[in-house]
Amino acid sequence: MKNRQIILSSRPVGVPQPRHFNLIDTDIPALQAGEFLVENIYLSVDPAQRGYVNDENNYAPPVAIGGVMRAVAVGRVVESNSDSYAVGEYLYGWFGWQDYCVATAALVFLRINPGRAPLSTNLGLLGMNGLTAYIALHDIGKPKAGDTVLVTAAAGAVGSIVGQLAKLEGCRTVAVTSSDEKGQHCIDDYGYDAFINYHKPLDEGLRATCPDGVDVFFDNVAGVIGDAVYQHMAWFGRIIQCGTISIPSWVPPPEGPRKEREILTRRLTVSGFVIFDHMDKLDSVVEVLAAMLADGKLHYQEDIGYRLEGAPQALVDVYAGRNTGKKLIQLRDYL
Amino acid sequence: MKNRQIILSSRPVGVPQPRHFNLIDTDIPALQAGEFLVENIYLSVDPAQRGYVNDENNYAPPVAIGGVMRAVAVGRVVESNSDSYAVGEYLYGWFGWQDYCVATAALVFLRINPGRAPLSTNLGLLGMNGLTAYIALHDIGKPKAGDTVLVTAAAGAVGSIVGQLAKLEGCRTVAVTSSDEKGQHCIDDYGYDAFINYHKPLDEGLRATCPDGVDVFFDNVAGVIGDAVYQHMAWFGRIIQCGTISIPSWVPPPEGPRKEREILTRRLTVSGFVIFDHMDKLDSVVEVLAAMLADGKLHYQEDIGYRLEGAPQALVDVYAGRNTGKKLIQLRDYL
Repeated sequence: MKNRQIILSSRPVGVPQPRHFNLIDTDIPALQAGEFLVENIYLSVDPAQRGYVNDENNYAPPVAIGGVMRAVAVGRVVESNSDSYAVGEYLYGWFGWQDYCVATAALVFLRINPGRAPLSTNLGLLGMNGLTAYIALHDIGKPKAGDTVLVTAAAGAVGSIVGQLAKLEGCRTVAVTSSDEKGQHCIDDYGYDAFINYHKPLDEGLRATCPDGVDVFFDNVAGVIGDAVYQHMAWFGRIIQCGTISIPSWVPPPEGPRKEREILTRRLTVSGFVIFDHMDKLDSVVEVLAAMLADGKLHYQEDIGYRLEGAPQALVDVYAGRNTGKKLIQLRDYL
Repeated sequence: MKNRQIILSSRPVGVPQPRHFNLIDTDIPALQAGEFLVENIYLSVDPAQRGYVNDENNYAPPVAIGGVMRAVAVGRVVESNSDSYAVGEYLYGWFGWQDYCVATAALVFLRINPGRAPLSTNLGLLGMNGLTAYIALHDIGKPKAGDTVLVTAAAGAVGSIVGQLAKLEGCRTVAVTSSDEKGQHCIDDYGYDAFINYHKPLDEGLRATCPDGVDVFFDNVAGVIGDAVYQHMAWFGRIIQCGTISIPSWVPPPEGPRKEREILTRRLTVSGFVIFDHMDKLDSVVEVLAAMLADGKLHYQEDIGYRLEGAPQALVDVYAGRNTGKKLIQLRDYL
């Protein structure tokens, strides 16, 4: 049986480009004891993947040259030598940018109930993006009714969910986006109260949209937007550092205005968030999100490609902000 | 009755210098209803006072030109038109750099039990410095036995107490100081396990003294020392931004390497700390500290001047690191 795999062919600095990858055909080896074969249906395209291939400080070692590109995916078990996962089960896990994954239990992130919601939502709203949005917003952001919650990359896979969850908590929500069009989309589809186009003067935008300051700053981008937002944080504000998509490389770290004084005088709390620290909560939070989705309380949007070989370019597009909603590659139909 | 007062004569940028102050003689006005007269005994000289006179972002409006320099002090009530404070009581409060303060209840920080410990300790170990050290270390730092706790301005009024409190929690303590001599003093007198002289290569010092990373970074200085420490933080490390003494001016904010990536990947939490947010805990924490002091568990050192007119230069000396331990001005004997 044949497999197609996207492998990392050279080590990128900054955002990986299509030239850093190769598509190869391989034979699928026979399953060993405990292994099972996952047929991928949806592959995820995530900003975090830059960190998986850069040789920089990160929370996991980078993908080896010649290795299959690390990615989460949703697939179905089509062969099994495992007592834990049976043929026909749907799984969400580290199955990579490939048609098939010879998997072990260690790669599985969550088991999927395929009847609960459209299968693709298990990669976004009910997947890492939704889980990240929910847990980071609540654990670090501690939103209270009336708080102003400002979200960067607000139309993105995480930001679009953060805005809606904050709104459900009774917060005022402000989207930071790359264009007026995306900003209007945030208002129309994700219920944001206002938006700031970051290509226009930030300080003015912040004064106009956050007159009482920002209580919760959910930051997916880092860099100059945050520099401006710190000057508009409310006392005792909470800052969630969830991503750093605007900074192309951290070696060496770029410079920016120091934040120590704002952190001190405004009594801010800044925390980094990585979803993998919260494995014990995932199943229960997925249930909460699935119930919200079933009740029509959450809107989502997907930007789906259909070619495995298009995945590297899709990642470039995500970094350029050319996607709207969750970027996915669908490899096959299911049912 | 005559009073001597140090007033702010012009608005400094950065660290205030003696030329920004004048010593004046004034008459003490008759007390109004609710007022009482405090005879100052000890005046405090604190790094935070820079923030009281700079026209920059801070947590309180600056001292007006012509106003008495804001400072905490310990004094005794010598006249009273107040039902709350009787003649003979010792108080700790915002009594300013002057011989006498016409006070109201709003200026009182804590009532002092003069028999509990030497009176001067109520400005340092049992005053804002000790309270800051204790509450910030515990509330934000959450020290556990075995943690590495790194402290900047480690020989200073707050740092010297932080090191001892962390040691009592079973932590490894590392002092950052401006000289080998001060570092050795931290080891000998405050029980620090190791020190880093920040005039030597920081990265090397951090590698040598914090091989397992820094779990709690108690930062009183901001700037380049912190830049290096972030690169040595342990995962899930806690950073207390308690002061910014190394940065002469924040208008405009100086630049430094961005921290967003370290905060994210190391899952750091950075929080600003201001003691005035914790008024409800002060009395109980003073009792804890007083008991530790009575049990011989805490060492303290004072650097005492005796001339009111020397206070501005004393503040310059504190910023230059020329003090060892808590800097005070004693105006008179007591008993």
